[in-house]
Amino acid sequence: MGTYVLIHGAWHTGTELEPVAATIEASGHRVFTPTIKGNRRGDAKTTGLAEAIQSIVECLIDNGLDDVVLVGHSYGGMIITGVADRARDRIRRLVYWNAFVPNNGESLLDMVPPAFARMFEAIAAERGDGSVVLPFPIWREAFINDADLDTAQRTYRVLNPHPLKTLTDKIALTVNPAELSVAKSYINCTEDTSLPHHYPWHPRLSQKLGLFRLVQVSGSHELCFSNPTRLAQAILDAGRD
Amino acid sequence: MGTYVLIHGAWHTGTELEPVAATIEASGHRVFTPTIKGNRRGDAKTTGLAEAIQSIVECLIDNGLDDVVLVGHSYGGMIITGVADRARDRIRRLVYWNAFVPNNGESLLDMVPPAFARMFEAIAAERGDGSVVLPFPIWREAFINDADLDTAQRTYRVLNPHPLKTLTDKIALTVNPAELSVAKSYINCTEDTSLPHHYPWHPRLSQKLGLFRLVQVSGSHELCFSNPTRLAQAILDAGRD
Amino acid sequence: MGTYVLIHGAWHTGTELEPVAATIEASGHRVFTPTIKGNRRGDAKTTGLAEAIQSIVECLIDNGLDDVVLVGHSYGGMIITGVADRARDRIRRLVYWNAFVPNNGESLLDMVPPAFARMFEAIAAERGDGSVVLPFPIWREAFINDADLDTAQRTYRVLNPHPLKTLTDKIALTVNPAELSVAKSYINCTEDTSLPHHYPWHPRLSQKLGLFRLVQVSGSHELCFSNPTRLAQAILDAGRD
Repeated sequence: MGTYVLIHGAWHTGTELEPVAATIEASGHRVFTPTIKGNRRGDAKTTGLAEAIQSIVECLIDNGLDDVVLVGHSYGGMIITGVADRARDRIRRLVYWNAFVPNNGESLLDMVPPAFARMFEAIAAERGDGSVVLPFPIWREAFINDADLDTAQRTYRVLNPHPLKTLTDKIALTVNPAELSVAKSYINCTEDTSLPHHYPWHPRLSQKLGLFRLVQVSGSHELCFSNPTRLAQAILDAGRD
Repeated sequence: MGTYVLIHGAWHTGTELEPVAATIEASGHRVFTPTIKGNRRGDAKTTGLAEAIQSIVECLIDNGLDDVVLVGHSYGGMIITGVADRARDRIRRLVYWNAFVPNNGESLLDMVPPAFARMFEAIAAERGDGSVVLPFPIWREAFINDADLDTAQRTYRVLNPHPLKTLTDKIALTVNPAELSVAKSYINCTEDTSLPHHYPWHPRLSQKLGLFRLVQVSGSHELCFSNPTRLAQAILDAGRD
Repeated sequence: MGTYVLIHGAWHTGTELEPVAATIEASGHRVFTPTIKGNRRGDAKTTGLAEAIQSIVECLIDNGLDDVVLVGHSYGGMIITGVADRARDRIRRLVYWNAFVPNNGESLLDMVPPAFARMFEAIAAERGDGSVVLPFPIWREAFINDADLDTAQRTYRVLNPHPLKTLTDKIALTVNPAELSVAKSYINCTEDTSLPHHYPWHPRLSQKLGLFRLVQVSGSHELCFSNPTRLAQAILDAGRD
């Protein structure tokens, strides 16, 4: 019926979204789960935001995709916003899933608590290759709080170091998301504390979309691991016309 | 056992609440679903708030109703607040369901984002008969976000143009709701974005009730269409002693 | 497997938590439900906060407990914070369940709306023995809003007058909770209106923990009465590593 393209978040690849894709496919849709440039095996960790966005624009072109429901998770919100700005006529609807919503000239780190930005920059400085990693206690308590310890450990081992430059580069947009004439949805996992609830995803960032459809579902930032079937249902509810 | 009177919101009539009423009746209660003056077939769209309130006061008197659990949805919160002020001894409990809670001298439009008020006034100016309608994209994305497109379209066709004057008239009350010596409940549908979540129904408006019972349920502003049975259960939980 | 110690809130005793304990025990854990000094039959209602905390420290020592998941409800958050400060090496994780999170020098009443503090002090002044009680309408509407009237009445009769001094004494801590090197979780019952939602438990108080795991569950402040099995599951999700 439709075409879904799922764009992962920082430290992830498209592979981790395959169980989610399988449920969406079972409803009769085509689903793509590309990996953003910078997170693919062997990518330079000096990749910047514009290159990252361009890699997904090319994925749409190379696969001849249009009428796409384009879903972005977390950092993936930066990507889908940039893709929609550059390839608007290929998009049927944007779906932000606990995702950043940038206006022109904003970076991802402009939208997180200042202490987070400083922590990421300190970690990257120590690593020295341009990449940042997430300390396990933060992953376990604030990102995947709804899973057991085994799941938290197993999924942590799958993460890849993320290029800091994609988080610090300011995005270049011709229009801000609120003015973008594309249908939009926001999925909010109600126990997502990867951003603290006094500095939340929704409605702080979602309201930057202008008119949008809200879908809420119980779960953490990493519902793709803790309950991929439930997440897929939320994506279907968010992605339909 | 008890008597429930369900008061619809703007653009609706009592007819749309009949499936909700049926579930409440199945629990052994009497249920009335009157239509407010201004929303009945043939009513002048110049109807004001005082007339609208008076039409429900008369409904209680004409049917000899007392010990009433009086439930108001959205704009219906203006109505039940006014009715309770004028006929307090007929009321057992007020139940606000994502409803406006006015203090003396406030209009409905005083409680919505200024951009909404301007939009309604522009639409009414264009229509020229005193009524305002809701654009379909707002209905589909922000009012009935939890239903499929068919349901959104089918229910949109049932709506009737709403008299703007009932939204701009200031209510006249002898006491504000917080001081009103009647039991009160507030039902909050957690995905209701008819008012944006940075300018929400609860707790922004609910707290004007003083002591009240909170009942929350998953769903949009139009849970009467998307899940009338679940809404009826919430009304029963809110309406019991 | 593990050891859970459940610390009740104001007006309660450990006995009321036994149905919750039974479900946790059925998962293979040891569970203790001591009653804090000041709430035990015959205790002086002039008991202060330091004595109350000390009574739970002694419970841990007397029973030789370590590696404890220490759970505090409401006022119990004052107690577990004090206990962790004095007996840190006996604690595996702190679990706050709609509980107060004090920094050094704060009292419980410093964290509630000023009108609540004045009400409690007026009630205590009238009683004259140092204790405060909760008026039934507040209990029914704002504390146990998710139960029926019979449950509200039955559980109200179980409450005991609470020593006001434990609510007004400033806590003495060597470090604030955010700096305490112990794992922490916060359980938030989403319909808990014992503190109003414009002055909420979470994230207003939870954020004082620094890094913590959030678990949310539908229910009122008194989920121990309205759904003890569901509460026990939330405690297990919050208490695991």
